[in-house]
Amino acid sequence: MDKNAFSGADETMGCGPLKHVRQAELPGPLQLEAGGELPEVTVAYETYGQLAPARDNVVLICHALTGDSHVAAHDDQDEPGWWDIVVGPGKAIDTDKFFVICPNVLGGCRGTTGPDCTNPATGKAWGQDFPDITVGDMVEVQKRLLEHLGIDELLAVIGGSMGGHQVLAWATKYPQIPRGLVALATSPRLSAQSLAFDVVGRNAIRQDPDFAGGQYYSSGAQPVAGLAIARMLGHITYLSPQAMSEKFEADRNSPRDVATPFEKDFSVGSYLAYKGQKFTQRFDANSYLTLSMAMDRFDLGGAEDLARAFAQTRGRWLVVSYSSDWLFPPSQSSQIVSGLIRNNKPVSYCNVASECGHDAFLVEDDLGSYGELIRAFLQNILSGEMAVEDKRTGHSPTSIFHHARRLDYELIAELIPAGKSVLDLGCGRGGLLDLLRQRGQALLRGVEISEENILACVRRGLDVLHEDLNAGLGWFGDNQFDVVVLSRTLQAIVDIERVMDEMLRVGRQCIVSVPNFAYHKLRDSFAKTGRAPTAGLLHYNWYDTPNIRILTLDDFAEFCQVKGITVHKVVALDTEANAQISPENNPNRNADMAIFVLSRDAD
Amino acid sequence: MDKNAFSGADETMGCGPLKHVRQAELPGPLQLEAGGELPEVTVAYETYGQLAPARDNVVLICHALTGDSHVAAHDDQDEPGWWDIVVGPGKAIDTDKFFVICPNVLGGCRGTTGPDCTNPATGKAWGQDFPDITVGDMVEVQKRLLEHLGIDELLAVIGGSMGGHQVLAWATKYPQIPRGLVALATSPRLSAQSLAFDVVGRNAIRQDPDFAGGQYYSSGAQPVAGLAIARMLGHITYLSPQAMSEKFEADRNSPRDVATPFEKDFSVGSYLAYKGQKFTQRFDANSYLTLSMAMDRFDLGGAEDLARAFAQTRGRWLVVSYSSDWLFPPSQSSQIVSGLIRNNKPVSYCNVASECGHDAFLVEDDLGSYGELIRAFLQNILSGEMAVEDKRTGHSPTSIFHHARRLDYELIAELIPAGKSVLDLGCGRGGLLDLLRQRGQALLRGVEISEENILACVRRGLDVLHEDLNAGLGWFGDNQFDVVVLSRTLQAIVDIERVMDEMLRVGRQCIVSVPNFAYHKLRDSFAKTGRAPTAGLLHYNWYDTPNIRILTLDDFAEFCQVKGITVHKVVALDTEANAQISPENNPNRNADMAIFVLSRDAD
Repeated sequence: MDKNAFSGADETMGCGPLKHVRQAELPGPLQLEAGGELPEVTVAYETYGQLAPARDNVVLICHALTGDSHVAAHDDQDEPGWWDIVVGPGKAIDTDKFFVICPNVLGGCRGTTGPDCTNPATGKAWGQDFPDITVGDMVEVQKRLLEHLGIDELLAVIGGSMGGHQVLAWATKYPQIPRGLVALATSPRLSAQSLAFDVVGRNAIRQDPDFAGGQYYSSGAQPVAGLAIARMLGHITYLSPQAMSEKFEADRNSPRDVATPFEKDFSVGSYLAYKGQKFTQRFDANSYLTLSMAMDRFDLGGAEDLARAFAQTRGRWLVVSYSSDWLFPPSQSSQIVSGLIRNNKPVSYCNVASECGHDAFLVEDDLGSYGELIRAFLQNILSGEMAVEDKRTGHSPTSIFHHARRLDYELIAELIPAGKSVLDLGCGRGGLLDLLRQRGQALLRGVEISEENILACVRRGLDVLHEDLNAGLGWFGDNQFDVVVLSRTLQAIVDIERVMDEMLRVGRQCIVSVPNFAYHKLRDSFAKTGRAPTAGLLHYNWYDTPNIRILTLDDFAEFCQVKGITVHKVVALDTEANAQISPENNPNRNADMAIFVLSRDAD
Repeated sequence: MDKNAFSGADETMGCGPLKHVRQAELPGPLQLEAGGELPEVTVAYETYGQLAPARDNVVLICHALTGDSHVAAHDDQDEPGWWDIVVGPGKAIDTDKFFVICPNVLGGCRGTTGPDCTNPATGKAWGQDFPDITVGDMVEVQKRLLEHLGIDELLAVIGGSMGGHQVLAWATKYPQIPRGLVALATSPRLSAQSLAFDVVGRNAIRQDPDFAGGQYYSSGAQPVAGLAIARMLGHITYLSPQAMSEKFEADRNSPRDVATPFEKDFSVGSYLAYKGQKFTQRFDANSYLTLSMAMDRFDLGGAEDLARAFAQTRGRWLVVSYSSDWLFPPSQSSQIVSGLIRNNKPVSYCNVASECGHDAFLVEDDLGSYGELIRAFLQNILSGEMAVEDKRTGHSPTSIFHHARRLDYELIAELIPAGKSVLDLGCGRGGLLDLLRQRGQALLRGVEISEENILACVRRGLDVLHEDLNAGLGWFGDNQFDVVVLSRTLQAIVDIERVMDEMLRVGRQCIVSVPNFAYHKLRDSFAKTGRAPTAGLLHYNWYDTPNIRILTLDDFAEFCQVKGITVHKVVALDTEANAQISPENNPNRNADMAIFVLSRDAD
């Protein structure tokens, strides 16, 4: 077994002595969304960094199912926090700049009112009489904590998993308060599969005779077996299959000798036994039921509901998913993005390539991606959404004529009247979007496939969405943009008909720049030498070029004609000579590229 | 919820009155692989169809974890079997042709000796004193049943999931007996993730106080809660996430009103409650522990062990996985294939595109694929491995010059001396392999990406493996084949360098036929018309052609030179004129294709 197999993301969650925890008594009663009420509410929280005099540097961090207020160590002597890798001086959530607040959620068992607290009406622990709560109730308590602290604006609210649900609930409940919202590894509601795992875990707890209907506090016997089984199951769902193989395949049949009443025939078995049992020492079974049920009932609905839910959010968004997360799969983050886009809300989205499963947002492996995205995003919010300068050039892996990029951008920019909304497909590092921003366009969005380019765009303060164009533009509504741009990308696309159909659906007008493989230098060279056109001038070899579609200006014009696409304008260029080629001057021979202005309907 | 959500693959498993079950008392004692012994063994089994006078039409079906001998209904009045869709007159496993035997496994609770039977030493039920058994022990009992029935050869042994483990154990334990082996949705051993789910399920059973250390028979109280929880968990793993969404998303919050002590707040919860509880009425908890532990201990090891394990198998193989099966993922079936290929065993493999998860092999959705593969495979074995004629032409989706295919095949075939082993990459419907078989080549294999083409090849009696060439040729060892052929496929490959490297590693010699985009008609047309070369003669449009690599004969020759590939021979062709083009006659202009004979090392 991997030496570190027994340590992991959850290990540090809430294990400290919590000496830095403060508790606020909030004025009651608290009316709950599901109909009940709590006569009084205590909320435990920790803070990091200094509140700015203008009280405008507050970052609220929302923890996941079994987390707590101890998000990071307060000093070298302190116990580790559950997100030490992200929160601290100079870290992605930089406590030298931000005033970080992390409260324990309502229903929790780490200092905030929950089922293990005393029900004032009976003088006994609430147990299963604790009223049903929702993620919205958790947010309500956080809002009241902010009031208690004299804070009425959030620079950002950030959370992963159930913490992400709280971020979404902030957007629906108090849409005007957060200026930035960061939702990691989360979903508009749990998938049926994820829900099913929770159902099994809760059944294991409730069927444990020591659960005693939730009134086990007096007996001193937690439902250890049931709670441990629920936790074991949780652990499987937090890891990816790859990560589990890496941890447990090599010495599959060599379990650690942990003292446990649970099966330990396999190394993975001893791991689960250890983790399951350890969890029961720090977590309350009733709290687990209350919180997991709140998470499972969190439900922003389908596409239409989601679009309505996000109508009022004034904040800027960063949504991050992790490719190997099967508990909160990327497709669900994509639904969140879709709901925001339907409302033209500013959002960036990245699906981080990761092997760490749902745990990815808690561990170091992919911190270089998601941590830097958070850092850049917060920096943009802090600096009033000013661009952070990107020192690198705008080179994209699919560009054909590197030297022509600026000319291409400038001509495209000139074709777009001021005040238009623009979507740039295959936006690379954001060069064109940056140019358009300088020219004062109304609303700018990019779609890009490279994670590295996404980060470059976010650093520039641009809104960019992570997607393969071949998968379509399902996020966007019909005619959602005045202009959709596809610059120097068409020749690298597999499913050209689909991408063209989609861009013409989404944009009132489309601007497509295409390379011309019938340019006289290429054509003559091919005729004379008999060597592939990609092998010569074009900087690539025939066997490794990203340019898999060999087209000419006449081919593209014919394509438009056949497909019923109206061509409003063609600007043909000889980019080597830095000259436009007029229609009379045989562009299909004399231009090395052209910019087409298109739409589906003649107008 | 889907109307049929509550019916499903497992529903019919073992629920019948079993009136057709026979029981054989096998002479004891049975020495067990793990060291113990059973003084006596009874095996329950059912048979279908007629045993041929030569006793050579026996198909043994091995059931999965919770199945039984009732694989199919015996007549219209009979209860449904668990694999009615596959087994019966005229069905894929045709009981008009085959004599089908399906025994309940050792350790089961449906008539074969298991923990619920009486331990003769104590006069009480075995319970947890039932000795540890292995999948090999299950096979040993099946072997003795065959002896009991006077059968010493199997036409085929077939099974899915743990039934597939039994097929693998037949191959290692009695490699000479089965002439055909069909392993569905199975693995050389469970993944760490799948193992982990079983661990949690067993813990739930053992921690149930009603389990009473396995001696619950006298109390009359099964550990219902624990067994139901294990079953609920199993159900989640049998379905794909997509299938669960389809079943339970639409009316997520409308559970069925089932009478149950389990949670039923969500529709998926009521489903799990119903399934879990129902299972406890037909299955024994000790048996569940015994069988799931036997399955989890089944372990043919890593690649080297697997290769050794399959050294003696004399049978022909069909391995089938299902794309959405995450409990026994396709990558594990691929490991089985690899072990067989390392031994040059005849095997076909198909990864059926399915949304049904692990259950796919039990349900009707993909029967058109896996059922027809089984049918064709068994037919080939029955008819002495003669080809079943494929009436369709050998057209492959990547062919460029359709009319030239036969010529290409014939020239390639002529380049291969008799008695050589040949691997055909991108073999389509098997046209070239069929031609080579007629010429008496020693060992023939194909690799193909299309499921439909795989079936066509299996119908022809060819051995073909389902894979995307861009993923490499990891199955095959260095120099495993005398000749590797890549006919008319290179131009459709994304990662040409990798595929070329891999084929030159696997084959002593490689024969590659490539189209020539510098053929004078293409070249002149391009020069004159300025239209993409793919848009004219080549039957495709520039925007949808599978031919994404534009190369010429000179380009390919240069590629070979740069990459250190030795060119032994070039046969250049003008396929329109049905003529060879000599080296003096400018093949790069006058040939429309060429066949290169290559190797990595000069010889």
